[in-house]
Amino acid sequence: MKINAQRLWNREQEIGEFGRDPRGGISRFAWTPEYREAALLLIKWMEEAGLSVRIDTVGNIYGRCEGRENLKPVLTGSHFDTVPMGGKFDGLAGIMTALEVLTTMKEQGYCPRRPIEMIAFINEEASQFLGGHFGSKAICGMLPHDFAETSVDRNTGKTMKQAMLEYDMGLEPDNFEGSLIKEEDYFAFIELHIEQGKYLLKKNLPLAVVDDIAGIHQFYITYYGESAHSGGMAMEDRHDAFQAAAETACEVERLALESGSPTRGTVGYVTVEPNEHNIVANKVTISVDFREVQDDIWQRLYDDVIKFTEKQCVKRGLTCEVKKTISTAPCHCHKVLKEIIEESTKENQIPYMHMVSYPAHDAMQMGRLYPMAMIFLRSSNGGVSHCPDEFTTKEDLAAGAEVLYDTICKICELDSI
Amino acid sequence: MKINAQRLWNREQEIGEFGRDPRGGISRFAWTPEYREAALLLIKWMEEAGLSVRIDTVGNIYGRCEGRENLKPVLTGSHFDTVPMGGKFDGLAGIMTALEVLTTMKEQGYCPRRPIEMIAFINEEASQFLGGHFGSKAICGMLPHDFAETSVDRNTGKTMKQAMLEYDMGLEPDNFEGSLIKEEDYFAFIELHIEQGKYLLKKNLPLAVVDDIAGIHQFYITYYGESAHSGGMAMEDRHDAFQAAAETACEVERLALESGSPTRGTVGYVTVEPNEHNIVANKVTISVDFREVQDDIWQRLYDDVIKFTEKQCVKRGLTCEVKKTISTAPCHCHKVLKEIIEESTKENQIPYMHMVSYPAHDAMQMGRLYPMAMIFLRSSNGGVSHCPDEFTTKEDLAAGAEVLYDTICKICELDSI
Repeated sequence: MKINAQRLWNREQEIGEFGRDPRGGISRFAWTPEYREAALLLIKWMEEAGLSVRIDTVGNIYGRCEGRENLKPVLTGSHFDTVPMGGKFDGLAGIMTALEVLTTMKEQGYCPRRPIEMIAFINEEASQFLGGHFGSKAICGMLPHDFAETSVDRNTGKTMKQAMLEYDMGLEPDNFEGSLIKEEDYFAFIELHIEQGKYLLKKNLPLAVVDDIAGIHQFYITYYGESAHSGGMAMEDRHDAFQAAAETACEVERLALESGSPTRGTVGYVTVEPNEHNIVANKVTISVDFREVQDDIWQRLYDDVIKFTEKQCVKRGLTCEVKKTISTAPCHCHKVLKEIIEESTKENQIPYMHMVSYPAHDAMQMGRLYPMAMIFLRSSNGGVSHCPDEFTTKEDLAAGAEVLYDTICKICELDSI
Repeated sequence: MKINAQRLWNREQEIGEFGRDPRGGISRFAWTPEYREAALLLIKWMEEAGLSVRIDTVGNIYGRCEGRENLKPVLTGSHFDTVPMGGKFDGLAGIMTALEVLTTMKEQGYCPRRPIEMIAFINEEASQFLGGHFGSKAICGMLPHDFAETSVDRNTGKTMKQAMLEYDMGLEPDNFEGSLIKEEDYFAFIELHIEQGKYLLKKNLPLAVVDDIAGIHQFYITYYGESAHSGGMAMEDRHDAFQAAAETACEVERLALESGSPTRGTVGYVTVEPNEHNIVANKVTISVDFREVQDDIWQRLYDDVIKFTEKQCVKRGLTCEVKKTISTAPCHCHKVLKEIIEESTKENQIPYMHMVSYPAHDAMQMGRLYPMAMIFLRSSNGGVSHCPDEFTTKEDLAAGAEVLYDTICKICELDSI
């Protein structure tokens, strides 16, 4: 084994502690004092490894190791923030394995052909400032110019601009443009991440090569009906907002099950007004969340639910409003990069499987600009993530770093992709 | 017209004001100072009409007019409390028309063959102390001995016993038995009430003869599943509590629509945990409310939903809990009394229809002990009730009092029923 498994584990544990939440787990949110402390330690380690470090205008941290030739660099990394009461592996594993790979190379005096950069994305979980994948969206130019002024902490009401300035690391909330990266800036992007599911655990495998990242539709439907006494109003005269929502939820499940693909469809959020046992509901909001890998099916799912909803509204004399929050097309990992990961995995005698990522990742944004691939590591504790019990073993983390090392070396040798 | 329509209307308006809520409408709850003020005015009017007044141990107010013969009396009345922000007609109309009938008889020097009693039931809406139909349940012996001690104001935490004592009208919260009435105490019971629906309004009729009061099932189902990431968990591995609830809601509607009777089925209350758009729900509670007139169908509805729920739980790997809150069988109005109401209505040239009462009434309890019938009056303001806009016209109120007058006179002449 080339990498130092013990150092990797110790660092994961040490830096993972920042943001310890008295209620349990880790709450390390972007631009907070505890995030800053963790970032300073990360930068210290990066500099010790001889990387040249820079922080962009929004707070993403880059570390660069020069190559033998002046070619486009390979970029690798993941996100540095957590969900509320999260764990030490989601996001962080991808940063610490990248750091371990680069630290090992420097120690060994190995200079890759291409430059290599690692990145710690900021505010991917977006626990305070909603939206998700902020850091990668910002650098890919997917956010409006005034985003930092209009985005507000859902708990404190503080603007993102204020949070960025208080962070005191020289960020420029009015200059998202300063963080932009261009298609010609990098050669490829690799993200290592924990699985956040139990399929590797079930199959007793430490690692997966991700084939695709599922596209997402996330939207809210609000049905407006008419409240009425549960006794006083005949069925045929009702305008029952909840029955429409219930039928839509059943349809979401049916569409997922019968799509011809392992689509995931979820209704997880429901509010009912006036929410009384003896009153027909007059206003109901549900969330709909679809994850699907095939582009044509992904597109159809949203349209089908909207059509169904409109029919329900006509049938029941309701009106409705649809609010889209996420609409991200499926993202496909690059064939050549996947083959290189497989090759590296085989060479290290690590058993693996292919997998689709249904959760979204910063890699989705990066994949629009560069050839992209992902490595998944086993989530050991029953597959749970986004909670204090999230866990990945020292051995699996080391295996991931080792595969990442070899993968990056092989990519660096490529002339084109 | 025998009764004094203007007096009836003025009194309805005057006494209906007690409990004026600054937020709108009337909030006159049992055993409150405003309820007491209204009760004292009612008693004053009853005494002015020559009735002998008594208050039972729980707060129901009776007024008695003696008959020519020492026979079982006819009892008539409705409830004196309101829902929060309710109107001036629900409940009160049945009391004020009864008072108007007895006041008119006294003025005319008419002495009926049988004694007549009017009653103002307390705490039917049960806005503070939940349960419903308290006054009629108490006198019919349907409440446990310690009910006043165990029943608690949902807003203040005050016990019913404390509220009864503070009411300062000589109530005996430890002596519900003192309020009991027996089968041999009365000859028949008549309740006049507003429709609380729009069917009389739609058909342009002032009055309905009620054929039946629908039976009620009211229960809560809680489904326990397992939370999971909406992306991370495949459909076939989920234990989705909300999908089970949604399917049950659809089944409740289907059962109501296909029962072979105009059943009403409602899911109006829904809570979802953790209620996040990207998390499969692990705990969902829904209310189910059925109203049905036919005894066999009424019985079957509950059983069918429970069976369906159990199947859902097996299918989805969930557990569930069912909490029954109301299970009251359908109640059928007495044929002879209905015929008398029809006759009285025809004699007064008032057009009418037959109707089922889907809301419950104190008459349901009384109907277990005595021959019972109900008269419904048109709800003029779009049929709404339980709200500040609840309305019944002066003319319809007078028509109701006139029919009640003749109905009671005719019942008083019967030897047996």
